[in-house]
Amino acid sequence: MNKTRIERDSMGELQVPVDALYGAQTQRAVNNFPISGKPMPVQFIRALILAKAAAARANVELKQISESQGKAIVDAALGLLQGDFMQHFPVDIFQTGSGTSSNMNANEVIATLASRLLGESVNPNDHVNCGQSSNDIIPTTIHVSAALALHEQLLPALVRLVQVIEHKAEEVHHHVKTGRTHLMDAMPVRMSQVLNGWAQQLKANIGHLQDLLPSLQSLAQGGTAVGTGVNAHPEFAGLFSQQLTKLTQVQFTPGTDLFALIGSQDTAVAVSGQLKTTAVSLMKIANDLRWMNSGPLAGLGEIELEALQPGSSIMPGKVNPVIPEATAMVAAQVIGNDTVITIAGQSGNFELNVMLPIIAQNLLSSMELLANASHLLGEKAIASFKVNEARLKEALSRNPILVTALNPIIGYQKAAEIAKKAYQQGRPVIDVALEHTDLTRSQLEELLNPEKLTAGGV
Amino acid sequence: MNKTRIERDSMGELQVPVDALYGAQTQRAVNNFPISGKPMPVQFIRALILAKAAAARANVELKQISESQGKAIVDAALGLLQGDFMQHFPVDIFQTGSGTSSNMNANEVIATLASRLLGESVNPNDHVNCGQSSNDIIPTTIHVSAALALHEQLLPALVRLVQVIEHKAEEVHHHVKTGRTHLMDAMPVRMSQVLNGWAQQLKANIGHLQDLLPSLQSLAQGGTAVGTGVNAHPEFAGLFSQQLTKLTQVQFTPGTDLFALIGSQDTAVAVSGQLKTTAVSLMKIANDLRWMNSGPLAGLGEIELEALQPGSSIMPGKVNPVIPEATAMVAAQVIGNDTVITIAGQSGNFELNVMLPIIAQNLLSSMELLANASHLLGEKAIASFKVNEARLKEALSRNPILVTALNPIIGYQKAAEIAKKAYQQGRPVIDVALEHTDLTRSQLEELLNPEKLTAGGV
Amino acid sequence: MNKTRIERDSMGELQVPVDALYGAQTQRAVNNFPISGKPMPVQFIRALILAKAAAARANVELKQISESQGKAIVDAALGLLQGDFMQHFPVDIFQTGSGTSSNMNANEVIATLASRLLGESVNPNDHVNCGQSSNDIIPTTIHVSAALALHEQLLPALVRLVQVIEHKAEEVHHHVKTGRTHLMDAMPVRMSQVLNGWAQQLKANIGHLQDLLPSLQSLAQGGTAVGTGVNAHPEFAGLFSQQLTKLTQVQFTPGTDLFALIGSQDTAVAVSGQLKTTAVSLMKIANDLRWMNSGPLAGLGEIELEALQPGSSIMPGKVNPVIPEATAMVAAQVIGNDTVITIAGQSGNFELNVMLPIIAQNLLSSMELLANASHLLGEKAIASFKVNEARLKEALSRNPILVTALNPIIGYQKAAEIAKKAYQQGRPVIDVALEHTDLTRSQLEELLNPEKLTAGGV
Amino acid sequence: MNKTRIERDSMGELQVPVDALYGAQTQRAVNNFPISGKPMPVQFIRALILAKAAAARANVELKQISESQGKAIVDAALGLLQGDFMQHFPVDIFQTGSGTSSNMNANEVIATLASRLLGESVNPNDHVNCGQSSNDIIPTTIHVSAALALHEQLLPALVRLVQVIEHKAEEVHHHVKTGRTHLMDAMPVRMSQVLNGWAQQLKANIGHLQDLLPSLQSLAQGGTAVGTGVNAHPEFAGLFSQQLTKLTQVQFTPGTDLFALIGSQDTAVAVSGQLKTTAVSLMKIANDLRWMNSGPLAGLGEIELEALQPGSSIMPGKVNPVIPEATAMVAAQVIGNDTVITIAGQSGNFELNVMLPIIAQNLLSSMELLANASHLLGEKAIASFKVNEARLKEALSRNPILVTALNPIIGYQKAAEIAKKAYQQGRPVIDVALEHTDLTRSQLEELLNPEKLTAGGV
Repeated sequence: MNKTRIERDSMGELQVPVDALYGAQTQRAVNNFPISGKPMPVQFIRALILAKAAAARANVELKQISESQGKAIVDAALGLLQGDFMQHFPVDIFQTGSGTSSNMNANEVIATLASRLLGESVNPNDHVNCGQSSNDIIPTTIHVSAALALHEQLLPALVRLVQVIEHKAEEVHHHVKTGRTHLMDAMPVRMSQVLNGWAQQLKANIGHLQDLLPSLQSLAQGGTAVGTGVNAHPEFAGLFSQQLTKLTQVQFTPGTDLFALIGSQDTAVAVSGQLKTTAVSLMKIANDLRWMNSGPLAGLGEIELEALQPGSSIMPGKVNPVIPEATAMVAAQVIGNDTVITIAGQSGNFELNVMLPIIAQNLLSSMELLANASHLLGEKAIASFKVNEARLKEALSRNPILVTALNPIIGYQKAAEIAKKAYQQGRPVIDVALEHTDLTRSQLEELLNPEKLTAGGV
Repeated sequence: MNKTRIERDSMGELQVPVDALYGAQTQRAVNNFPISGKPMPVQFIRALILAKAAAARANVELKQISESQGKAIVDAALGLLQGDFMQHFPVDIFQTGSGTSSNMNANEVIATLASRLLGESVNPNDHVNCGQSSNDIIPTTIHVSAALALHEQLLPALVRLVQVIEHKAEEVHHHVKTGRTHLMDAMPVRMSQVLNGWAQQLKANIGHLQDLLPSLQSLAQGGTAVGTGVNAHPEFAGLFSQQLTKLTQVQFTPGTDLFALIGSQDTAVAVSGQLKTTAVSLMKIANDLRWMNSGPLAGLGEIELEALQPGSSIMPGKVNPVIPEATAMVAAQVIGNDTVITIAGQSGNFELNVMLPIIAQNLLSSMELLANASHLLGEKAIASFKVNEARLKEALSRNPILVTALNPIIGYQKAAEIAKKAYQQGRPVIDVALEHTDLTRSQLEELLNPEKLTAGGV
Repeated sequence: MNKTRIERDSMGELQVPVDALYGAQTQRAVNNFPISGKPMPVQFIRALILAKAAAARANVELKQISESQGKAIVDAALGLLQGDFMQHFPVDIFQTGSGTSSNMNANEVIATLASRLLGESVNPNDHVNCGQSSNDIIPTTIHVSAALALHEQLLPALVRLVQVIEHKAEEVHHHVKTGRTHLMDAMPVRMSQVLNGWAQQLKANIGHLQDLLPSLQSLAQGGTAVGTGVNAHPEFAGLFSQQLTKLTQVQFTPGTDLFALIGSQDTAVAVSGQLKTTAVSLMKIANDLRWMNSGPLAGLGEIELEALQPGSSIMPGKVNPVIPEATAMVAAQVIGNDTVITIAGQSGNFELNVMLPIIAQNLLSSMELLANASHLLGEKAIASFKVNEARLKEALSRNPILVTALNPIIGYQKAAEIAKKAYQQGRPVIDVALEHTDLTRSQLEELLNPEKLTAGGV
Repeated sequence: MNKTRIERDSMGELQVPVDALYGAQTQRAVNNFPISGKPMPVQFIRALILAKAAAARANVELKQISESQGKAIVDAALGLLQGDFMQHFPVDIFQTGSGTSSNMNANEVIATLASRLLGESVNPNDHVNCGQSSNDIIPTTIHVSAALALHEQLLPALVRLVQVIEHKAEEVHHHVKTGRTHLMDAMPVRMSQVLNGWAQQLKANIGHLQDLLPSLQSLAQGGTAVGTGVNAHPEFAGLFSQQLTKLTQVQFTPGTDLFALIGSQDTAVAVSGQLKTTAVSLMKIANDLRWMNSGPLAGLGEIELEALQPGSSIMPGKVNPVIPEATAMVAAQVIGNDTVITIAGQSGNFELNVMLPIIAQNLLSSMELLANASHLLGEKAIASFKVNEARLKEALSRNPILVTALNPIIGYQKAAEIAKKAYQQGRPVIDVALEHTDLTRSQLEELLNPEKLTAGGV
C-alpha cells in the first residue's frame, strides 16, 4: 500500500492504493473498521457479485441502464468470479450493520472493471447499484448465499452421510450389542438399528432444512431503501429473480412482503435454528461413536475407529477418536453461531436490521463447518470402523436385564426379583429364572435370545 | 402428610400419605428430588393421562389386558382429567432424566383409581403400563403435549394476532411516517406497511411451525425399552396412535424410526428453534411499538399506547408501554428456554435421551408464554393504540432524505449535495432542489410527495 | 374472588377482592398480565419487604415520615414475613419491565397492614415508598435477594459439597484406576485425585462467586427515578444500607454510581455468568459419575451409586444414576437461565433496564437449583457410592499405555513400538518390554507400577 | 505443495512439502482436518512457542536435556517469533480436541530449526516436548495466551475507553437532558451523569476481569498426560512458570490442582462469562449512542456522531452510526463465542477436556474483538460527538414529569392530577401547578429547575 491515488466520494477525497479496483467508499470502510482483520465470507461475496450481474440484466431489460453498460457490468462481474476475487474485497466483517460498505465495495470494483471493458465511465451508484439499495441487496445476498450453500454444500453432504451410515448399517446388521439407557445396561439392540437411528435423525434434519428453502429463496430485492421500492422499477424484483435463477440454477422469487425481509432477518434465524438442530444430531452421533470406541481395553471397546494419527505427544501407541471430536467441536461452534444470529435477529428496529454482516458470516460458517464435518465423519469414521464382536458377545452374555422379556409371562415384580438375584450372585439370568419359574431351559433360551429380542416392534 | 400408610415396590417398603392415590415409586421420587419445588407442567400430565387411556384401549383390542381392566383404566384416566388432577402429580421437574418417576406416578394414580372402579387390583406396571416403557411413553408425551399446545394455544393465538395487526393496518393505512434505517431518517413509509411487515413475519413463523407438525405428531410409542419394541405387540404402535387421535382430534402416527425418537429429542430441538424465531419476531414488534410510543414529548411520539396502569411509583402521570415490555421479556425467556432444550438435546447417549423432563417443561413453557403474550400484545397494545398524525407530518415535512427520489433524474452525487445543503441550512429540501436543478416547483412537489413515495415497488 | 370492594388510584376506580391486603395498582397488574401464572420468587418478595422496613427506619431517622408511621411500616413488614406472605403477592413475573407492579404491590400490602396497626392511613406512595422509586428499589431488591441467596443457600451448599467430596477422596485414596483422555485408556490415576480435581473446580467457583459479592452488595438505593436521587434525602442511601445490613446481617453499601446500577444489570449478568460456570463444573462431575457408574456389567462399572428408586417401568432390576441426571438437568437449566439474563441485560436503554423481573426470577432460580442439586449430589451420590476394586484392577492390569513410563529411558518411538505390539498380540506390556529393552523384569515392575505412576508431579 | 519429501512417525510414512519446517504429524493433521480452512489464532501459537522456550530452559536446569539442546530450542523458538511464523502452523482449528496436532506442529517446527542451529538432531517428542504432554501444554497455552491478550490488549483498551468517556463527561457536563425510563420521558439528567454511568459499567468489568487473572495465570503445566505429572520432574512446573514469567513479564504460577486444570476448562468459561458481561455493557453504551444520535430530524437528535462514511448507497446525504453498530455486532459475536465456550467447557470427561482448540479460538477472538471495538468506540464515536443543546432544551421545557419534584410537598396523588392536566392541555406544568397548589411561581421555578433536579442524591 505504498503508492496511492486520490479518490473522492460525497464526503470528500482520500488516498486509495494505486492499483486497487475499489474506490473511496471501500477505502473509508477499510480505514474505519480495523476490528477482526477478517473479510466477509467468500460465498457471500460471490453471491453479491452474482446479484449485481442479475441486477444489470434486469436493468437493461427495463431500460434503466444501456445495453452496453449492462453488458460491461455483467462481463465484469462474471469475469471477477473466474479469478481470485477476494483480494478486492478487504472490508471487515464488523462494519456498518447494513453491509453498505460491502455493497459499495462490489459496486466500486465492478464499476472499475466495467469502465475498463466499456471504455467509458460506469458509475458505482447510478449504474451498478441501479434500482438497488444496500437495504435490499444485502438481505438478498444473505438469502442467496445461504441457499447456494445449502444446495451446493450442506444438503449434499448430509445426504451423502446418510448413505454412508445406511450402507454401514447393512454391513454391521448381524452384530447385536447391549442397549444402554441412562448409560446402564438395557435390552439388546442391533448395531444396524443404532446406525439407522442416526440416519433417521439426519433425514429429519434434511427434510426440515428443505422445508425452509422456499423462505430462503424468497428475496428482499425490489424493496430498495425501506421496503417501499422507491426508485426501483415495479418489474425489477421479478426480472431480477428470473435472471438470478438463470445464473444460479436455483429458483429465486420476489418476497411476499419486502418490509418483513428488510426489517427482520427471521428467515436466517429460522434456518440457523435448524442448523443448530443438525449440530445437536451430529453431537449425538459423534458422542455415540466416541463412547463405543472408548478403551480399547478399559472402555466399552465395541468398535475400533480407523487410526488417523498418533494420539498423544507423550503416551506412545495411543490413538484417539479425532474425527468425532472435530465433529463435536463443529457442533459446538454452530450452536454458538446460532446464538449470534439470534441476538442479531433482534437488532432490527423499524425498517432495517443492522447486524446483517454477522448474520451472513455466522450462517455461512455454520453451513460450511457442518458440510465439511459431515463429509469427514462419514468417510473417516463411520465408513471405516471395525466391530469388536467378541466384546459385544461377552457383554450380552452376562446381562440380567434380558429378564425383561419374561414380564408378560411372570410379571414385573417377579422378574425384578430374578434380575436382582442374578446381579447379586453373578450368575446367568437363565439359571436363576429356571429356579424361580415354571419355564424350561429351552423355553427360556428361546425367550432370552438377544437376537430375537431386537426384532420386537420394528 | 401426617398420617401415612406402608407401600412397597421392587426396592422395599416406604411411607406414603394415607390418602395419596399414588404409591411407592412416586413417593420415592418425591423424597429423592427436593430441587425446584415445581411439578411437571399441567399440559404434560394431561397428555400423559390421555396416552394412558389410549394405550389401555389399544391393549384391550390386542387382548393384552382384559376389557374390564381396560375400561377401568380409561374411565379412571378420563375421570381424572375432569378434576384437579395436578394434586396427584407432585414429582419435581428435576427428577430422573427419563421421566420414569412421572410415568410411574401416572401408572400408580390410574391403577389406584381403576382398582377402585373395577373392584379388583389393577397393576401399575403390568396393566396401566402394559406394552409401554418410560422410554417410549415419555417422548410420546412430549410430542403429544407440544402438538396439543400448538394446535390449541399457540397457533390460534398467532393467527389471531395476525388478524388484529392486519385489521389495524387497514385502520392506519392513511398515515405516512418517516421510515428509519440505522435509526436514521430515511424514505417515508405507510403505517400500514409497517404493520403488514409484522403480520408477514408472524405468518412466516406460523408456516414454519406448521411444517414441523408432522414430525411432532410422529410418536415414539411402540419402541418400549430401547426402541426395539420388546414386550410390545407389533400392532400396538398403530392402534395407540389411532386411539390417541380419537381422544385428541389431532392426527398422530407411529414414528418411522423409533430409535431416533427415543435416543434423541431432535424434534423438540427443532420446534424450540422455531419458537425462538417467533420470539425474535415478537421482540422486533414489541421494540418497534415501544419506540414509536416513546415520549410522549421528548421521544418519537408517533403513537400512543393504551394506558393500562400508573407507570411509576414516584413520577406522577407517567404511563409506560407495559405490554410490549412483558412481551419482550417473554421473548427473552423463550430464547433462554431454547438454550436449555439445545443442551438437553445433546444429552442423548446410545438408546435414550436423559433430559426429557426439562425438555418438556421448557418447550411447553415457551408455547404458553408466547400464546399469552401474543394475545395481550394484540388486544391491549396493537388494537388500541392511537396515531399522533401531527407528529408524523411535522417530521416528514423537514426530511431532506426525500431527495432520494431525485436520484434517477439528477444522479446520486448531485442529490447528496442538495441533501447536505438542506441539512446544514435547515431549509426544506424542495427549496434547495429548486436552486440546484432544472426541475420546477410543481415537478418537485410531485416527485417529493411522501405519500407517493411509499407506493413504489409494492 | 367473589366479593369485591372498590379501590382507586391515579387512573380511576376498579374492583379488588374484598379481603385483599393489596389495592388498585396490584389489581391492575393482576388484570393486565395473565401470562405465566407464576408470581415473583419468594426470596425476591422477602428481600423487597425487608428493604421496605429498612427504608422506613431510614426515613424516620431523616424525619421524612413520623416515628409512628415508621414503626407501623416496620412492624407490618416484619410481621408479614412471619406468615404465608406470598398469598398477598399475586403479580405475574411477566409484568412491567421495571417491576413497578411488584413494588406497588409491596407498598399497598404494607400500607394496609401499617394503617391497621397505626389506626390511621399510611399511604403506599408517600409513606411506604417514601424516598424510593421502583427504579432504585427493584434493582436493589435483585441485589439483596441474590446476595442473601448466595450467603444463605448456594455458598454453604457448595462448601458442603466440597467437604463431602474431600472426605470421600480420603476414603477412596487407595483405589487406583485407569486414567482416560479422549475417553481412551491413559496413564493411571488415583480415585482421590479425580475427586480432589472436582473439589478444586468447586473451590474455584466459590472463590469467583465471592469475588462478585462486593458488587452484589452495592445497591442502587438512593437513585430514585433516574439515578439522580431526586426526592430522596442525600443521606437516605447510606442510612438505608445500614438498616438493611442490621436486618440481614449482610454488609450492604450504597453504589458508587447509581446510573450504572439502574440503567444496567451488569452485576446480575456477571453473577449469572459465574453461576453458569458452576453449572458447567457440576455437569462435568455429574457426567464423570454417570460414566464411572455405567454398566453394571456392560459399562465401565468402576463405581456403584446408591440405589434410590427402581430405574425402569419395564426393565426389572434396573437402577439408574438419577441424582447425577437431575444435577445435569439443573446445570442445563442454569445455562439457559443465563441466556435469559444475558438478553435481559442488554435491554437497558438510557436510564433504566426494563427486564428486571425476569432477571430476578432467573437469577434466583439458578441459585436455588444449584444449591439443592449440590446438596443431593453430595449426600445421595458422592458420599455413598461404592468402588468396584476388582474392575479397576482388571482394567489396569491389561493397559499397555503404562509404557509411557519408559519414555525417558528408551524414547517415545521405541515405546510406541512396544505398546503397539502389546495391543496387537494382547500380551502384558511388561513381557513385550522385556524382549525389546535391556531392562530387567524387576526394573520394569518398578517402573510400570500403576500406584507409583500416579504420584509423579503432584 | 508440488515437491514433497518423505517423513515418518510412529504410524508410518507420508509425503510432506519439501520445504516445510514441520514433519509427519503436522502433515497428518493437515490431511485429516480440512474443515474450516482457518488456523489456530496467532496469539495462541505465539504463546505456545513461548511455552516451548520456557520448557526448554526449565529442562536444561533440571538436566533433562543438554545445555546445547536447550539453547538451540530456545533460539529456534524466539527466532521463529521474529518472523512470519504463522505460515508454519497450518493445522485447522477443528482438529483433535486435545490440540495435540498443534502441539506436535510446534514440536516439529522447533525441532527442525533447533536441529539446523545445533547441527545435530533435536527430537520433537523427546527434546522439544520433554516433560510435557499436549494434555498440559495446551491448557497452559490457553491460559497464557488469554492472560497476555488481557494484559496487552483488552484491559488497556477498556482503561483507555474509560478515560475517553470520563474526559468527554467533563466536556458535556453542563448539558442537561430529559431522562428516559421505559423510553418514556422521566426526570432530567446531566449528559455527564449518563457518560459516567457508562464509565462505571466498564470499570466494574475491568475489576471483575482482573479478579480472574490469578486463576488465568495459574497453569496446568507439570500435569503431563493425566494430571499426575508422570514423566515430568517434580520441579518442572515451578521452573517452567518462572521461565515463562521472565519471557512474558506476566506472573505465572503452577496450578493448585492439575487434574482440575486438565479435565476442565472452568477458568476459560469463567473468563468468557465476564467477557460476555463486558459485551453486554458495550451493547448498552452502543445502543444509547445510536438512539441519542437518531434522526437527525425525525429522531431524538440529542447528539451528532462524527460522519465517517456515506451511509447509504441509495439515500444521498445519509450518515449512519457505523461505529456503534460495529460495536454492537462485536458484542453479539462475543455472546455467541461464550455459548461455544460454555458447551465446550462441558466436554471434559474424566482426565481431559477435548474441545480445547475452539475454547482457545473463541476466547482469543472475543478479547481481540472487544479490544478493537473499544478503541474505535472511544476514538471515533464518543470522543468526537457533538451535543445538540437546542434539542435538549426544547424537550426539557415541555416535560410535565418535572412535577415529580413536588411530591414531597403536595403528595403523589395531587402531583399526578397536575401532570395529567398538563399533558392533556399541552400546557407548561408550572402554569397548571400554579393553579392547583399554594406555591408561588418563583417557588415553582426553583423547585422545577431541571439543572437542580439532576443533583439530588449523588
